[in-house]
Order: sequence, then C-alpha cells, then structure tokens
Amino acid sequence: MTDRPARSHGRRSIRESLVPRDLMAETNQLRGAWEARVITLFPEAFPGTLGLSLTGKALDAGLWRLDPIGLRDFGEGRHRNVDDTPAGGGAGMVLRADVVARALDRAAEGTPDDRARWPVVYLSPRGRRFDQATARHWAAAQGVTLLCGRFEGVDERVLDAYRVEEISLGDFVLTGGEIAAQAMLDAAVRLLPGVLGNAASAEEESFADGLLEHPQYTRPAVWQGREIPAVLTSGNHAEVAKWRREQAERLTAERRPDLWARWSARHHPKA
Amino acid sequence: MTDRPARSHGRRSIRESLVPRDLMAETNQLRGAWEARVITLFPEAFPGTLGLSLTGKALDAGLWRLDPIGLRDFGEGRHRNVDDTPAGGGAGMVLRADVVARALDRAAEGTPDDRARWPVVYLSPRGRRFDQATARHWAAAQGVTLLCGRFEGVDERVLDAYRVEEISLGDFVLTGGEIAAQAMLDAAVRLLPGVLGNAASAEEESFADGLLEHPQYTRPAVWQGREIPAVLTSGNHAEVAKWRREQAERLTAERRPDLWARWSARHHPKA
Repeated sequence: MTDRPARSHGRRSIRESLVPRDLMAETNQLRGAWEARVITLFPEAFPGTLGLSLTGKALDAGLWRLDPIGLRDFGEGRHRNVDDTPAGGGAGMVLRADVVARALDRAAEGTPDDRARWPVVYLSPRGRRFDQATARHWAAAQGVTLLCGRFEGVDERVLDAYRVEEISLGDFVLTGGEIAAQAMLDAAVRLLPGVLGNAASAEEESFADGLLEHPQYTRPAVWQGREIPAVLTSGNHAEVAKWRREQAERLTAERRPDLWARWSARHHPKA
Repeated sequence: MTDRPARSHGRRSIRESLVPRDLMAETNQLRGAWEARVITLFPEAFPGTLGLSLTGKALDAGLWRLDPIGLRDFGEGRHRNVDDTPAGGGAGMVLRADVVARALDRAAEGTPDDRARWPVVYLSPRGRRFDQATARHWAAAQGVTLLCGRFEGVDERVLDAYRVEEISLGDFVLTGGEIAAQAMLDAAVRLLPGVLGNAASAEEESFADGLLEHPQYTRPAVWQGREIPAVLTSGNHAEVAKWRREQAERLTAERRPDLWARWSARHHPKA
C-alpha cells in the first residue's frame, strides 16, 4: 500500500526548523519540476489539503512546486483595490483587467508562451468542464497557471488579451475558485511521475476505460449477516474478472447513461 | 459589497484566546444551525479553505457547524487499522465495513433518519454528479454527513446497509474525498440564510436560469486599446439587459451545447 496518510501528515505537522522559510522552499525546488502558479486573493489557502497525503508528500519531495500569487499585491492605490462595479450596472464587483494583467505577467515569468505546454486557466462556471483528459493534459505540460475568481467575475478584456482558457469544476456555484483549483491540481498532480504507486495507477486506468468501478469487499467475510459474494472468495481469477466487469457495466448503465452510451458504442457495436 | 476576504482572514489569524477550544466552539453552536459531519482519515484538513472568506465568516458566526470525524478513531486493534486487501484480489486497499459503520453510527447521533432531511453521502467517482440542485437540496436539509474515501474504495455492504448515496464531484479521479467534500460544502453553505449578501444571491439566480454568465467589464474604460462595449456605458438599461441576454445565449450555445439544448427547448420552442 502506498498511501500512509496519517503518518505523512504527522511528519509535516511536527517538523520544526530554524532555517528560514525561503531557504527551505529552495531545497524543494528541483530544477524542472512540474509547477502550479495560483493567482488568488487567498494565497494562505494553499497548499491547504494539497499539503496532506500523497500530494503533500510529493510537494515535500520536490516532485511538484506550488507558487501562490497574491492578487492584492497587484492592486491599485493605497488600498490595493482589485475590483470595481460592473459596467452597465448590476450587483457585485468585477476584477479589474489591469490588476489581473499584472498578476498574469508575474505568473508568466520564465514559462513557455505555448498554452499547450503551460495552460493558463480561469476557474469559472462559464468554462468547459474539467475532466480526467484535462488532468492528463495538465500533467503532461510543464506546469499550469490558475486564476481564482471571486465576486461577479473578471473583466472580459484580460481573458481575451491573455488567451486565458475558462474551465469549470462542474455545474454549481462556489464562493471562489480556490477549492476548485485544489481539486483540479489534486487530479493532475497524482498523475505526475513518482507521485502514486502502482496500485493507484491501476485505478486510474480503470476510470480511463470509461466504466464506473465495480463494487469492492474486504474482511470480515460476514458482517451484520451480509456475506462477501461467493465468486470473490472462489479463487477463480477468470470468474472474478468476469463478475467485476459485469458489475462495472451494470453500475455504469444504471447510474451514468451518458458514459454507458459511449462505452457500449465502442464495445458492443450493433451487428 | 459583502465580500471582504483579506480582512476577514486577518481577523481570524490574529485572534488569540485563553478560553479552551471546546468552550469556544460551544459559543458558535447556535441551536439548530445547519451542520456538516465529515468522516475522514484527515480531520485536520477541515475547515481548510472553508475557514476563509464568506464560508469562514459564516462558520464563526454560527450560521453553520462543521464536525470532522476521524475515521482512524474507529479502527481495529492497536494499530487502528481501517482497511484491508480487496476480496478477489487486486491492487490497493478497501475501507472495512465494520470500521466505517462505527463512524457512521457516531455521525448519526442526534440526526433524523430521513435521508431527505439529512443526506448521508459517500464521495466517489461512481456516484451521480454533484450539481446546483444537489447544493440546494442539501442547504434545505438540517445537515449532511459526508464520507471521504481513500484507497480503492469502501466495502459495498456498509453502503447498502446504511443507505449511503454516492455522489461524484465530476469525471476525474482525486487522491481522496476531502477536497471534493470542501467543494460541495462551499456550494451548499453559500445558499444558507444569511451567508451571502443580495449581490451573490442574484448570481445564483442567474445560474439557476440555465444560461452561462454574460461577459463582465469594469474600469478602466480603455485598457491596452480595448474599450468596454459601448452599449454598457450608454445608460440604456433595456439595451444593456438585451445585450447581456444575447451574450449569455451565445456563450451557452458555443460552450455548452447540452445546457443550450435544454434551455432553448424551454424558451424557443419550435412553432
């Protein structure tokens, strides 16, 4: 088993050092490691949960880097204003193009201009939905820049001028982009070389196959009068594999007609 | 504007007190406040980003409660084992039915048995996808219990026996359910009475309408040679509303054919 979460966190939380934070960070920065730059009004939200478990161990080991960029540092005037009222009226506040542009300029330092090699993304419910293919695409790039929104949105001009892609976590509204950024980074980082053991890689392959996971069982053999399905304890590997595939197909057909339609078109073409 | 994030966080981070933590929590517990109980191997991941901004202010104000329940406390034996190898073989580890059942029993204390009044949810890519309707449903309940997975999954028997609903954040794989839980709780908590100002409520209504948001602009009027569309500075409210609706329809048709098909069937039925 590759995942020893409680121990990993324990080690992080009790670690103390007299080395200044910047020097400690320096030792983590393997040259060329995959990097996430996150523009946010809440830089203190990072790494957050990404600092625990597998993603946290990988961060400590220098397998990836995380650079939160505080948007307010690029604000206007003495109060570091970052937003203003929407042109044309309406509720809420809009992040200013000039302020966001300065943060994007800072985030772009030393990164390739090719958006395929370094995606630049605004987290927004207007975007196309994040999925496993996007996670794979990001993991294959050198890094990614994420812009977290708040308020009513971002001035459209800066999204156009900086060729910022809009990506959505799903069809729901969040108070801001920070948790969405953490979810997407978790999905991408776990695909980086060395972050997962073989076990979890297998899980990813299964999802990539386009079917939902089959049911799982473990000890005790009988629990509250419920037994593990006999085929799973039969020792017949071919029967186990067949049962699991049938269960995965059944669950997918029941729960996700959209995935099932795609999968069955590929695997059970009509004669 | 209701969102003053940096200041809110600053206040939280400098607050000190000699009152023991349990007593402090007690003052936050308004009788009957909406409550989230989260079963997890990483109770220290909470509140995480939910402790910042609007959700954090609402947590401090007692508008909702958060009760992380450490799964390892319910583990087996001296090592508090929570998982075992999958019946039938295969990679990874499966959370044990008996261990998860004890945690669910603890989470159920004092909650209604009616799943509509208190949803009990396992966060899993096998589930139906979380959306705004689910967020509204949760916010209208008295609270919610979330079970965060790790490893290969959870013994199916405990999901059946405890009528646990499976819900997925989206079509991607995460290292665990913790960030997914935070995203879903953020979406639900912002809908609780008193958490948002009127501004953000309006935003939610717009999303509920089934169209993506129209583009937004704010000062400066000209930025890098790019002007705000003239209609938005015309002062003609009817024209502004018409332009915004057209833009929202255009963006939805371009980016989300699925939403567009549903919306146009309702609003532009064929003659």
